[in-house]
Amino acid sequence: MYSGGYTGKVLRVNLTDKTFTEEALPEDVAQDFIGGSGFTVKYLYDLVPPDCDPLGPDNKLIFAPGPFTGTTIPCASRMAVNAKSPATGAMGVATTGGHFPVEMKRAGYDVMIIEGKAEEPTYLWIKGGEVKFRSAKDLWGLPTMDTQLMIKDELHDQNIRVCCIGPAGEKLSYMACIVNERRVAGRKGLGAVMGSKNLKAIALRGDLQMDIADHDKYDVARKRMREGMRKSPILYPEFSRYGTSTTLDLTQALGIYPTKNWTATGVFTPAEKIGGYAIEALGTGRTACAGCPVGCSQLRLAKEPPYAGFFTEGPEYETLYSFGGVTGVDNPDAIIAADRISDELGLDTMSAGVTIAFAMELFERGILTLEDTGGMDLHFGNDVSMIQLLHLMGVRKGLGDILADGTRVAARKIGKGSEKYALHVKGLELPAYDVRGAKAHGLNFATAFTGADHNKGYAFQEIFGIPIPYAVDRFAIEGKGALTMWTQDARCALADSPTMCVFLMDMAVADFMFDNTADLMEATTGLKYTPEEVHRVGERINNLARVFNTRAGLTRADDDLPERLKTEPIPEGPSKGQMISQVDLDFMLDEYYDARGWTRDGIPTRAKLEELHMGYAADDLGI
Amino acid sequence: MYSGGYTGKVLRVNLTDKTFTEEALPEDVAQDFIGGSGFTVKYLYDLVPPDCDPLGPDNKLIFAPGPFTGTTIPCASRMAVNAKSPATGAMGVATTGGHFPVEMKRAGYDVMIIEGKAEEPTYLWIKGGEVKFRSAKDLWGLPTMDTQLMIKDELHDQNIRVCCIGPAGEKLSYMACIVNERRVAGRKGLGAVMGSKNLKAIALRGDLQMDIADHDKYDVARKRMREGMRKSPILYPEFSRYGTSTTLDLTQALGIYPTKNWTATGVFTPAEKIGGYAIEALGTGRTACAGCPVGCSQLRLAKEPPYAGFFTEGPEYETLYSFGGVTGVDNPDAIIAADRISDELGLDTMSAGVTIAFAMELFERGILTLEDTGGMDLHFGNDVSMIQLLHLMGVRKGLGDILADGTRVAARKIGKGSEKYALHVKGLELPAYDVRGAKAHGLNFATAFTGADHNKGYAFQEIFGIPIPYAVDRFAIEGKGALTMWTQDARCALADSPTMCVFLMDMAVADFMFDNTADLMEATTGLKYTPEEVHRVGERINNLARVFNTRAGLTRADDDLPERLKTEPIPEGPSKGQMISQVDLDFMLDEYYDARGWTRDGIPTRAKLEELHMGYAADDLGI
Repeated sequence: MYSGGYTGKVLRVNLTDKTFTEEALPEDVAQDFIGGSGFTVKYLYDLVPPDCDPLGPDNKLIFAPGPFTGTTIPCASRMAVNAKSPATGAMGVATTGGHFPVEMKRAGYDVMIIEGKAEEPTYLWIKGGEVKFRSAKDLWGLPTMDTQLMIKDELHDQNIRVCCIGPAGEKLSYMACIVNERRVAGRKGLGAVMGSKNLKAIALRGDLQMDIADHDKYDVARKRMREGMRKSPILYPEFSRYGTSTTLDLTQALGIYPTKNWTATGVFTPAEKIGGYAIEALGTGRTACAGCPVGCSQLRLAKEPPYAGFFTEGPEYETLYSFGGVTGVDNPDAIIAADRISDELGLDTMSAGVTIAFAMELFERGILTLEDTGGMDLHFGNDVSMIQLLHLMGVRKGLGDILADGTRVAARKIGKGSEKYALHVKGLELPAYDVRGAKAHGLNFATAFTGADHNKGYAFQEIFGIPIPYAVDRFAIEGKGALTMWTQDARCALADSPTMCVFLMDMAVADFMFDNTADLMEATTGLKYTPEEVHRVGERINNLARVFNTRAGLTRADDDLPERLKTEPIPEGPSKGQMISQVDLDFMLDEYYDARGWTRDGIPTRAKLEELHMGYAADDLGI
Repeated sequence: MYSGGYTGKVLRVNLTDKTFTEEALPEDVAQDFIGGSGFTVKYLYDLVPPDCDPLGPDNKLIFAPGPFTGTTIPCASRMAVNAKSPATGAMGVATTGGHFPVEMKRAGYDVMIIEGKAEEPTYLWIKGGEVKFRSAKDLWGLPTMDTQLMIKDELHDQNIRVCCIGPAGEKLSYMACIVNERRVAGRKGLGAVMGSKNLKAIALRGDLQMDIADHDKYDVARKRMREGMRKSPILYPEFSRYGTSTTLDLTQALGIYPTKNWTATGVFTPAEKIGGYAIEALGTGRTACAGCPVGCSQLRLAKEPPYAGFFTEGPEYETLYSFGGVTGVDNPDAIIAADRISDELGLDTMSAGVTIAFAMELFERGILTLEDTGGMDLHFGNDVSMIQLLHLMGVRKGLGDILADGTRVAARKIGKGSEKYALHVKGLELPAYDVRGAKAHGLNFATAFTGADHNKGYAFQEIFGIPIPYAVDRFAIEGKGALTMWTQDARCALADSPTMCVFLMDMAVADFMFDNTADLMEATTGLKYTPEEVHRVGERINNLARVFNTRAGLTRADDDLPERLKTEPIPEGPSKGQMISQVDLDFMLDEYYDARGWTRDGIPTRAKLEELHMGYAADDLGI
């Protein structure tokens, strides 16, 4: 039996009936899925029909921190959120940090499952084993920071932690996210799922202290982790000083910082204006998730009109891409403003920016006219129009309504060949790595179970040159199948399930992460793992999610990349001439499926699923 | 000796030396000045040279709640703040509510005196009798809501209460205010005084409970007050449902809602778009100051682009004037946005709006050109330009730099006869009552010791028809001298010193306010007053402030009204033809000075000052 780390309780809340129940966390679920991402994948698989309408009452919203969350293990204050994604039609696991995840554990729960649909706008108030269903009528339409503040005031408790949606979630935007404090469970439209349930927010408060199974083992493993962190040149001083922002300087140097809707990578070079070293001047301190000694969250303040006074936690590298390079904007103040506005509206910065870049390319090509834009000049680089359009997307007005569900839906609505310029995989917009010059990233974008998601399998080997588990050539096609499987499984097993910040996994500590996670799991929970078994948990999660997606109708054909990447080489710079042809992609996919033990159609086999103790999933597939 | 209500402690903080001391609150100060506004006037008088530079190190910033604050007396959670005002050169008392004032009492202080100037941006952290001087370098430039949140996070205590300045205060704008929660100590540039001291914020926390001198008396007086409140048709349902917003409907009906920089009062009729009944549709609940059963603070949310999602506590009537009628704007969403943006920048909404209206008239008249405005179309009613200009004023850029100190300073800088369109008294912009049709308001604007300040002597007799102390004809000149003295003294004695929300004084409870305040003072503090002695405290405060102002160089010539009001009658509507000629004004001033027992030059006499136990003030005047 597990004996620490878990609260042992799963909370199920039914919004239709205004009821809730508590269930025990089964031992085998804990052993096989660890927590966090693993738990949300397992529960979603078990409880949600794969063919359901993502915005209908059959979809469920599932929250799970991990067994490390709420302990003194550093950088463990994270949780996963999952639902069937309206953006992709696939599983939509997102993760977030901050303080809410720890508070959820303190409030007593390893997993929260939100079911049904409230009749009227509602928020949940969870404390002391009670769930109250409170009216959110007065909160409907509010931006996310105000929502959190108003709930604290209304409940007369400033120590409450809240996650919520903004206007974008209420209006069911496919790029709506769930916001807690200044952090988000982003992409994939989980905010729209929450909005579809008329659920504005979840407020919770607790005081439970986490037990530890074996204090001696725990101290040793924890110390080893902290020592590893201290040695990391990337955590200190890089991340604690710059956050992720200097990744821009690095990717631009590698020629893979995508600009102007991926037409000009390597040509347009904004690092000197919006790169990490440039925007350090706009820094005004930093903050950290609960229990994190790194504090990578840089706080930045816009200095010049019309953006002076906009303050944000960020912008992270991905946002320096989505509201920077990919839109052609090189005004750091505008990016700071767009970052904050997105957080307030509850819009994902990445999907929003890439979708605006898409609209900009359509405008440049004359597919969208001034009449379509309501008079906005949408040429690349127009930051004022970018901000205007962002507002319109958040509240679904005018052109913003057409764009609010991302490039795939917008291209369908706009027609006129615009799909060609829609840069997404499975409906999820491309992250900030021009994968034509970093092929494993391309394979991950094509195959990650959530769509084009750098947070499901990040090949740091190609970017930072870290040779774990082995060194790779970023331009090479060969060898990327096994690597992508490794990055995807490691991410689930080491970061998103226990839970643990991914920045530890990518860095110098990576070389002992499987060992140490096994040690920490035993020390914390009493559950025993070999390093290989930890790794296997990651594989299990990826396989179960793949079965769900297969049953939801996704096939090898969906493991694709946008046409542009397959036909247009990078025009200039250190990655000049690189692309991923259909032949290249097929080669990589075959390699990947082979490594996974799946069919060449990308379907998990009964042998693989049984090996992972998931014969039931093979039954469900009818194989 | 006082025995309850007061903490008995005065905190003096020296920012230059980073030292602090505690002094006892003297018995005679308590007896003669009650608290709040009275205390700040007395301490400023005693400690600040009247000829000092308001933005120099000799000026002091003084905070004082009253003896009722922190007790269970309803609507008493207010405080006064005072300093020599950079806008007027006179005393600059402002009051604010919310939760900070109660927390200040709980932290142990009746008065806080902030002296000197910090070398670098600093904030104070006050708890348990200790004052910590903490760096505010990382907070410099932040908007006010973020400032409050960041301090709570930094100090790891979400229950802290904070008052702070925004960018406007840092940049020494004469219309910068001090913000706590979503409330402000507004007008008169107290935020600039705080900024001149490099003081970004004051954070405090306490747990002191207020003693009550006589519980039986207290219960009787408090019950009487609550019963009076319940009978008031204005508090319930009017204020609890609409806040102050329906005053617009009333003043427009009276023809005294000033529009388009006071050129079109009675002509432009926006009540149907931005009046209290119109904007009820944008309401999203309400909130209250600590211990207030009325909850007049309406929360409102902008619904349409480009303002959708802006959320504010307000706009109050004065803001519905300053960003509404006086600028010619009739878009309620724009007013909500401007209200919130002002709070975030730490700009006073009234002075900001009237100053923008001034710029708009100059633009209409060709005195300001598109070149001067940086391309902004500043015609009356252009809400987008209004918001743009507001931003520029908050950070002092472009035309915003010229306007950031209000109409008087801006007219001097712009020249070209623009002073004629600058609607201020003593450098403070006119509030939302066209005094040409409500003469006592005009006399108060001319004589209030803080400049054109409706919050220093509001003749509700003229607006609401309440015949206390006697009925008046709003158009009449005669009889307004004594009335204005009464409203000014009553305000100080009943509302701003004990402290008590002014809305109680203006309403149905007014008929027993002097009696009941005397009873409540004795019950709470043990200090004995007749109703006449309470009234006399108000007179004392107004006299002492007048002596300070006289010594600061202000004369009868400063008790003036803008030229427009003296020469242009109201053009249309129920107050058509009304104005206040110089002859009228002189008549009213003579009446007022006579009522006050001052010379016809507006200088307090030795006899009056000695009658008020302030012979020392006569000595200081050399009379």
